[in-house]
Amino acid sequence: MRIVVVGLGEMGASLALAIKNSQANAEIIGVDTDERTLTRSREMGLTTQVASRLAPVAATADIIILATPTKVIIALLHQLAQLQLKNNVIITDTGSTKVQVMAAAQPLIDQGVAFVGGHAMAGTQKAGIEAVNAKLYNQVPYFLITDNRAAKDRLQALLRPLQVNFVTMTAQKHDQMMAQLSDLPHIAAAALVNSTATTLNEEPRLPKFAAGGFKDTTRIGAADPTMWTDVLLTNRDATLAALTGYQQQIQRIIDGLKNADEQQIHSFFASSQQIRAKFEE
Amino acid sequence: MRIVVVGLGEMGASLALAIKNSQANAEIIGVDTDERTLTRSREMGLTTQVASRLAPVAATADIIILATPTKVIIALLHQLAQLQLKNNVIITDTGSTKVQVMAAAQPLIDQGVAFVGGHAMAGTQKAGIEAVNAKLYNQVPYFLITDNRAAKDRLQALLRPLQVNFVTMTAQKHDQMMAQLSDLPHIAAAALVNSTATTLNEEPRLPKFAAGGFKDTTRIGAADPTMWTDVLLTNRDATLAALTGYQQQIQRIIDGLKNADEQQIHSFFASSQQIRAKFEE
Repeated sequence: MRIVVVGLGEMGASLALAIKNSQANAEIIGVDTDERTLTRSREMGLTTQVASRLAPVAATADIIILATPTKVIIALLHQLAQLQLKNNVIITDTGSTKVQVMAAAQPLIDQGVAFVGGHAMAGTQKAGIEAVNAKLYNQVPYFLITDNRAAKDRLQALLRPLQVNFVTMTAQKHDQMMAQLSDLPHIAAAALVNSTATTLNEEPRLPKFAAGGFKDTTRIGAADPTMWTDVLLTNRDATLAALTGYQQQIQRIIDGLKNADEQQIHSFFASSQQIRAKFEE
Repeated sequence: MRIVVVGLGEMGASLALAIKNSQANAEIIGVDTDERTLTRSREMGLTTQVASRLAPVAATADIIILATPTKVIIALLHQLAQLQLKNNVIITDTGSTKVQVMAAAQPLIDQGVAFVGGHAMAGTQKAGIEAVNAKLYNQVPYFLITDNRAAKDRLQALLRPLQVNFVTMTAQKHDQMMAQLSDLPHIAAAALVNSTATTLNEEPRLPKFAAGGFKDTTRIGAADPTMWTDVLLTNRDATLAALTGYQQQIQRIIDGLKNADEQQIHSFFASSQQIRAKFEE
């Protein structure tokens, strides 16, 4: 079984490692445009073969996993539609937005290629191959987007070593949820961090005065800018819709404060406390 | 040495416990309006005596620590200005906003009473006496607001068991920093949580799909509504100013998305990544 993993960042490398650890006979071919990443992959023994481009290794692949930024996934899907592939190849991706990916995969699907959109609720604020972690996917929700039941079953079997919880849904619903659960928190955190700039300038000891609440709330403000630019631009409509709802909440508390409306402010925090209790710690 | 601690919530109870653990001869009198809290304080052996009101126990106190919500601290300071107190009594508070507290303490200070405003960057999203934790204050910044050097030295000696890092600053500067480091993150987190309400209604599995980023960013969205209503209303101007800066950041990313301006979006996240690196994990 030849598995091609394109993109040996945190997601791709961790996926490759989990498969490698559980399937001794799997031949994992790592593709990355970054030479240093390929060198590290060899040093770590993560892959049996590496390549800097997908095209030369695509033809013999049984499985192709696209674990690059979403913008690149889309370009690779266009490219794959032009290549000669194995008859029963299965192609999947790990992009965090799915509407644009599924649209880009449509020509392949129309050719009869088994494509299943995928996305795991895994990943940290770290990035790159050094963030590799065989347990990264453990017990996380893993969304699958497809109408092709057979392809889905084959992919689930392949990804069993990750020990994820599979959830099937539409690309639209997935992207709306992600705007709410992931894009919006990243924006809120980065906006918080950015808005400290002036105060930080006046008081360089500011970081020493930050408590756990600030640190928790802004932790993902350290996320990779290139990745998040890509995520947001490929999920623009859903993110803008989520931002409209968020702005309304911010306006709600501004109005409460301006009017010194104790009841309005209390209900803002009370509803949050009640809803947050539905989520785990 | 008779130490009166008013308010046996997380902050007051933890402070009492840290002092009690290190000073065997300290007589700690706990004051709380909640009967169950007083019962629990007795059961825990936290206090040597309890009372439901400050007035009857104030006259014999060597130290009075006001660890109630800020609104109540202000009322208690007005009350203390009318009471007969020990000549060398020292009064302090743990309120998270200081401009209004210092103003309310001015009549006492004018009478020659040693008052030092205090505020520790400690506390969790928990509340009440059950959250008591002798290590809560360990190594956290502890702000002291006073022009009275002798009173400050005495208070620092008393609070040595907490093992905090003392920082002296003006009430104005303190409150502006808190708006940025504490009030704004609590608002941002609660706004995030509240804005999931519609999606949560449509998809009850939503909490299962939330990853660490969402959980970190919204953790303090579970904070006590009554406490945070009090905090915000006693630090209204600084919070509204911080919210204006925050709204500008949110608008910056909305504009970037609307214009699909890759560079603008990238710089939003790049500046956040750079600034966030100055803070600890």
